[in-house]
Amino acid sequence: MSENPESTPPILSPIAWQSGVLKLLDQTRLPREETWLECREPADVADAIRRLAVRGAPAIGVTAAYALVLGLDGAGEGAALGRRFDAVAELLAGTRPTAVNLRWALARGRQVFEGNREAGREAAQSALLRWAERLHQEDVETNLRIGAHGAERFRPGDRVLTHCNTGSLATAGYGTALGVITSAWRAGKLAQVWVDETRPLLQGARLTTWELERLEIPYELVTDSSVGMLMARALVDRVVLGADRIAANGDAANKIGTYTVAVVAARHGVPFYVAAPRSTIDPDTATGEEIPIEERSSDEVTEVFGTRIAPAATKARNFAFDVTPHELIAGIVTEVGVLEPPYEESIRRALAETDPSP
Amino acid sequence: MSENPESTPPILSPIAWQSGVLKLLDQTRLPREETWLECREPADVADAIRRLAVRGAPAIGVTAAYALVLGLDGAGEGAALGRRFDAVAELLAGTRPTAVNLRWALARGRQVFEGNREAGREAAQSALLRWAERLHQEDVETNLRIGAHGAERFRPGDRVLTHCNTGSLATAGYGTALGVITSAWRAGKLAQVWVDETRPLLQGARLTTWELERLEIPYELVTDSSVGMLMARALVDRVVLGADRIAANGDAANKIGTYTVAVVAARHGVPFYVAAPRSTIDPDTATGEEIPIEERSSDEVTEVFGTRIAPAATKARNFAFDVTPHELIAGIVTEVGVLEPPYEESIRRALAETDPSP
Repeated sequence: MSENPESTPPILSPIAWQSGVLKLLDQTRLPREETWLECREPADVADAIRRLAVRGAPAIGVTAAYALVLGLDGAGEGAALGRRFDAVAELLAGTRPTAVNLRWALARGRQVFEGNREAGREAAQSALLRWAERLHQEDVETNLRIGAHGAERFRPGDRVLTHCNTGSLATAGYGTALGVITSAWRAGKLAQVWVDETRPLLQGARLTTWELERLEIPYELVTDSSVGMLMARALVDRVVLGADRIAANGDAANKIGTYTVAVVAARHGVPFYVAAPRSTIDPDTATGEEIPIEERSSDEVTEVFGTRIAPAATKARNFAFDVTPHELIAGIVTEVGVLEPPYEESIRRALAETDPSP
Repeated sequence: MSENPESTPPILSPIAWQSGVLKLLDQTRLPREETWLECREPADVADAIRRLAVRGAPAIGVTAAYALVLGLDGAGEGAALGRRFDAVAELLAGTRPTAVNLRWALARGRQVFEGNREAGREAAQSALLRWAERLHQEDVETNLRIGAHGAERFRPGDRVLTHCNTGSLATAGYGTALGVITSAWRAGKLAQVWVDETRPLLQGARLTTWELERLEIPYELVTDSSVGMLMARALVDRVVLGADRIAANGDAANKIGTYTVAVVAARHGVPFYVAAPRSTIDPDTATGEEIPIEERSSDEVTEVFGTRIAPAATKARNFAFDVTPHELIAGIVTEVGVLEPPYEESIRRALAETDPSP
């Protein structure tokens, strides 16, 4: 439970812009290989988002911002420029229906584009690039603030359970829920992390473990269905995980399995926190019932790393997300503080606040 | 939801005794290969039980009975015969700590042995074989009765969720919870089965699917953590699954993940049934807290079919079972009827009943 500041690893980012090329750490290859994809066109980026080479709501937002920049390469001027922007934005918007950060980034990118298109393609593209780079940097700063606010809720010796991957890999850097865990560890408050593997794509087993190894934070891996047993044995003091979209009433959509964890945590009185930047909150979504839930391919369940695990004829249902109702959430950790029930009110106040100074 | 009796497949048994050799369907190879192991010595059988080539509490009981027969091959007489029996029984008892049917079969086998050892090795071995074959046959009959009693609790159109494998493969034939599902299907009461994959060893994805394909019962596979979402969307009307040991108060130990399903089912008012023969009930275990929980190798979690899914340094905790408290169980389906709360009383009555006539 101690921390040696000299061994603190630098903040990793899975997204890098280098001389007009967007480089993405291919997360489908982790933990076995660290391969960087080089995206030169929006179609490359859309493909990477769709097949989860880049994933995590905040990371998708920043990636989409850079994709808008790539999209203006070789575009015409005037109406042609506008048509190109629209086509690229539409391509990106269609990749993942649940994550609101993607829509949020595209809407902000459109404002930047509209404010600069009169000056021509080159000026609009430069303005978009400056904006994307600022967004990238801001996301890291936002996450450091989320980490600090969340860590305040920890007590020394806490054993925390997390689901999926919400670390550096899921963001522009540092992470949301895993950022909270990192900050709690650095504050000497954390005894260990329980990582659930997060089927079907095993983001817990592959990615969160990889990050915790790098951060030298003690953890143990368990199957998703072990959560009941862990809580029944009083081995979990706290849950913190991320969100892909938060409704105005505090209902939160997140990786499939989140709701199951929340129900078990409620039964055992274990505080359940959601950590996410304010850009994850969609004030236009009144409740969780309005959040569209992406259903993905059956093969993601019936094959593991290309090996078939079920009979050839077996069909699986693969809901990518579920919705946790606000009454099961002890707090929503954002960059402006930990929001508490009643969420309609705390969310409204948080969204009205100006950005915290760096 | 209809049934064509002519297409009803014959009852499969994963256990066969042929000319002094015990043949076991190697369930670690399913669904890709149907390989039968030939066991000639108790050590072969113990190994098969330990590595889950044969699994499921009732199947382990019947397998252990045949292993006692194999154990007397070439044994001496008198004191040597007794020492051999003790050694074999001890070897088998050590293979799986949670399943009570194993201990139950060994205790009944010892009675048979003690009643016949004075007549010499050959007579004792013959008596044990007759007993093992009767046990094998009785288990199938027991399961057909469990199926009939359980099916009475179904209503036309029901969508049932099950966990792990409790079918022909887990028993001497027909199955316990999967027997109930089969009987409900044949009675025209079932719309579909939700099969959860049951990590880490994927008995749902590999074995229950394989049996349901064979039985032509409609099903869909989901990851274990999808159960919350399925119930939140009201897609599950009933849960039925097995048990490895039931305490005198109705608490039930079963495959890891069962308790998590029970907690979510309770929140959504979905009736949760445990199906098991009376031999699974241990009147000497007062409550679930007394049930020892087997912890298995980390590799079962970190490797899937030999492929590493986590970083090399990652350690997993692999609890094989969890305990569902009796207050979450709507009924325990046995061969003498569906036991209901208060379980101390209904269990005591059920254990006092004589065996139902065939």
